[in-house]
Amino acid sequence: MNVYDYVVKKARKANAAARVMSGKDTAEKNKALLSMAREIRKNKYDILKANELDLENAKKLGKSSAFIDRLSLNEKRIDSMAEGLEKVASLPDPIGEGVKMWKRPNDLRIEKVRVPLGTIGIIYEARPNVTVDASALCLKSGNSVVLRGGKEAICSNLAIYNIIYKAAVNSGLPEGAVEFIDITEREAVEVLMKLNGYIDVLIPRGGRGLISSVVKNSTVPVIETGSGNCHIYVDADADLDMAEKIVVNAKTQRPAVCNAMETLLVHKDAAGEFLPRLGSTLHKLNVEIRGCSRTQKLIPDVKLATERDYSKEFLDLILAVKVVDSMDEAIDHIYKYGTGHSEAIITNNYASSQKFLREIDAAVVYVNASTRFTDGGEFGFGSEIGISTQKLHARGPMGLNELTTTKYMVYGNGQIRE
Amino acid sequence: MNVYDYVVKKARKANAAARVMSGKDTAEKNKALLSMAREIRKNKYDILKANELDLENAKKLGKSSAFIDRLSLNEKRIDSMAEGLEKVASLPDPIGEGVKMWKRPNDLRIEKVRVPLGTIGIIYEARPNVTVDASALCLKSGNSVVLRGGKEAICSNLAIYNIIYKAAVNSGLPEGAVEFIDITEREAVEVLMKLNGYIDVLIPRGGRGLISSVVKNSTVPVIETGSGNCHIYVDADADLDMAEKIVVNAKTQRPAVCNAMETLLVHKDAAGEFLPRLGSTLHKLNVEIRGCSRTQKLIPDVKLATERDYSKEFLDLILAVKVVDSMDEAIDHIYKYGTGHSEAIITNNYASSQKFLREIDAAVVYVNASTRFTDGGEFGFGSEIGISTQKLHARGPMGLNELTTTKYMVYGNGQIRE
Repeated sequence: MNVYDYVVKKARKANAAARVMSGKDTAEKNKALLSMAREIRKNKYDILKANELDLENAKKLGKSSAFIDRLSLNEKRIDSMAEGLEKVASLPDPIGEGVKMWKRPNDLRIEKVRVPLGTIGIIYEARPNVTVDASALCLKSGNSVVLRGGKEAICSNLAIYNIIYKAAVNSGLPEGAVEFIDITEREAVEVLMKLNGYIDVLIPRGGRGLISSVVKNSTVPVIETGSGNCHIYVDADADLDMAEKIVVNAKTQRPAVCNAMETLLVHKDAAGEFLPRLGSTLHKLNVEIRGCSRTQKLIPDVKLATERDYSKEFLDLILAVKVVDSMDEAIDHIYKYGTGHSEAIITNNYASSQKFLREIDAAVVYVNASTRFTDGGEFGFGSEIGISTQKLHARGPMGLNELTTTKYMVYGNGQIRE
Repeated sequence: MNVYDYVVKKARKANAAARVMSGKDTAEKNKALLSMAREIRKNKYDILKANELDLENAKKLGKSSAFIDRLSLNEKRIDSMAEGLEKVASLPDPIGEGVKMWKRPNDLRIEKVRVPLGTIGIIYEARPNVTVDASALCLKSGNSVVLRGGKEAICSNLAIYNIIYKAAVNSGLPEGAVEFIDITEREAVEVLMKLNGYIDVLIPRGGRGLISSVVKNSTVPVIETGSGNCHIYVDADADLDMAEKIVVNAKTQRPAVCNAMETLLVHKDAAGEFLPRLGSTLHKLNVEIRGCSRTQKLIPDVKLATERDYSKEFLDLILAVKVVDSMDEAIDHIYKYGTGHSEAIITNNYASSQKFLREIDAAVVYVNASTRFTDGGEFGFGSEIGISTQKLHARGPMGLNELTTTKYMVYGNGQIRE
C-alpha cells in the first residue's frame, strides 16, 4: 500500500471512530483512561527497552544533549505519563455542557451544546510522552486522535501506542479511537495535512519550524501552539523588590519554555536604581545580559543588544534589556517584537496597569506576576494540550474545553419561516 | 507599485488601524456606522450610476440572470444597506465583556475578556451589499477590515467604498479601518491569503468554488462559511400535517439559500401515507422530485435519484427523496452526504428526537422545525457575517461575537512560580 492510501485508511478509521466516541459517556471514557494508565505501569520495562533503541540511534546520529533529554524515558517519566492519564480521568467531562439556551419570539428553543471536535491530528517531535498526553486529552473530550510522532522516537512511540491502543479497545472504546501513523517518511505528514473531511483539526506540537511548516502547508484547520517572545515591563512606579523577584523567576525558573521572559523593558525613571541591582543578581545566576546603550551604562560587561536579540526566543539563560522613555515606547516595542504569548507589567500605578491590560494584544497579559503562569495547570484547567497564540478558536492555555466545539439543538413544534 | 507591495501596503495599514480600533468605545463606533448610513442614503444616485456600468459590462459578458440579479442595486437595496448599518449600530457591543473570571489558590485573579480579532479579510463575489454589511459587522466588533470584492462589481464597490470610507474617517475612525483592494487581478487574492501577521482571519463569502479555493490556498486562518446539503427526516412517528408544512417551507420558501432542504428522508412506515400527498403538493409548487425506487412507486412521474442527486446542493426547486428502513439508515445517509449545516427530524417520539439530536453532527440540528431558521437574524443575533460549517472557532450562524476573540487578563500581587 502506498503512503497516501495508508494514511487515508488510518484517518478514515479514526473518523468512523469519532462518531462512536461522541456518544461515549463519561464513565466509559474514564474506564479506558484508567486502564491505559494501568497497562503503561505494568509494561514499563518494555517501553524502556524500546526507548533504549531510539536513544542508541539518536546518539549514533550525533543528536544534541537537549534532544536526547527530551527523547529519554525513565521509570519516573513513565509513571508521570500514567499519572497524567489518571489526572485527565479525574477532570470534569466537557461534553454535553449546555453553553447557553434561549427562546425566540416564535417559541423556538435554541440550545448551544458542547460536543467533540471529531478527529484530531497531532503532529509532534521526538517526545514520547506526547503520545500518551495528547491521547488522554483527545479521548476524554470525546474525540478520536491520529498521532504522528517524530521518527527518532518511533520505537518508544510504537511500544507506548500498542499498550494504550489495546487498553482502550479492551475497555470498550472503538478501534480507530487512537490511530498512530507508524511510517516515518515525511510524505505521511504531507498527506495528513490535506485530509479535510477526515481530520477536523491539526495541532502541531514542537518547535517553531514544525509549527510554521504545518501552518503553511495544511488545508485542514490548524491550532497554532506558539512560540513566546515574552516581555516584562518594569514601570516607573514599580515596586522594585517585587520586580526583581518576578524578573528572576520569569527568566531563570525554567528558561527553555515558551512562557519564560526573553526581553526586559525598564522605564528610564526606574532604570538607574533597578538595573544595577538586577544585573548583579542575574550575574550570580549566570544569566547573560544583552542590553541597549543605556543598559550598558548601568550594568557592567553587557553586550550591545541587536535587532536580532530583541526578536529572538532565546529559551536559554540570556536576557535582552532595553531602557524606554515611556510606557508607550514599551508597548510599541512589544507590538513590534512580541509573539502575542504572555506579557507583563510591574507597576503600582492604577492607570498604567489598566492601559497595559487594555492595549497589549496577547493571549495573556499580567499585572505584577510572572509570565511563567501561562499554563493549563496553573490556570486551573487540570491539563493542557498546548498554548495557542492564534486568535481563532482558542487563545492561551488549551485544556479539555478547547478540544471541543458546539452545536445548536433547536426544539420546535412545527415552526416554519414566513 | 506591483500587486504584492500594493496589497501588503493595504493590509499593513489595516493592521495598524486595528490597534486603534480595539480601543474605540461603543459610542465612537456607532457614530461612524450611523454616519456611513447617512452618506449611503445621501449618495444613492452615485451608487446607482456606478452600478449601471457594472451591469452593462455583465450583460456584455453574457452573465446569467441570477448573476445579474445579485449584482443589481436599486433604491430599495441601497436603503436596506443603510438600514443594515443602523441595525448593527443598535446591537450591543461585544467588546469588553468578561466571559468569565476566577481566582487561583495563589490569589491570582484570571479574567477572560472579549476583544477584537484584529484585521479581518473578506473575500467575496459580485454582491455589492457585502461591502457595506461586512464592514458594519467588522467595525462594530472593533476590528479593521480588508475588502476584496468580485471584479464584476468593481464600479459599484468603489462607489460604495469611497462613501463609507470617508464617513468612517470623518467620524473619527482611523484611516485603514476599512481598506478596499481595488485591483481586480487574481494575484491580489493570492497575496492576501498568505499575509499571516497582517491579516488575522479570512472569511470568504460566496459560492463553493470561491470558498474551497480560499480554504485550500490560505495560510491565514479561514472561517469556512459553508454550503448546505440539508436533510429533513420524517420519522415513523411524525405528525404528517406538520411534516408537510415544514418540508414545503424548507424546500420552497427560498430555494436558492444554503439552509434550504435538498434531500427528504422518509421512514418506510410513514412513506405510504406521506409521499403521495406531499408529491401532489410539491407538484403544484413546481418542485421536481428525484426519488429512490420506493419513492417512484408512491409518487407518479419521479425521476430515479442518482448518487449525484443525493450529494448535490440543488439551490433550486428540485428535491431528492429516499425512503429508509430505519432512523439509523437516515442518520447514516446524513453522515455520508450531509455538509454539517442544518438537519431536521420530524417526530413525536421522544426517544427518536433525542437520538437524532445526539447523533447528528451538524452546526444546527432541529426537531419539528424548518431548516430555514439557520440564520443570524432568526437566532436573535441581530445580523450575521455568514454561517460556519467548520468546527473551529465558530459553528453555525456567526454574529458579532464570532468576530471576536478573548484574551486573559491576570491580576497579581507579586506571584512567582515555584
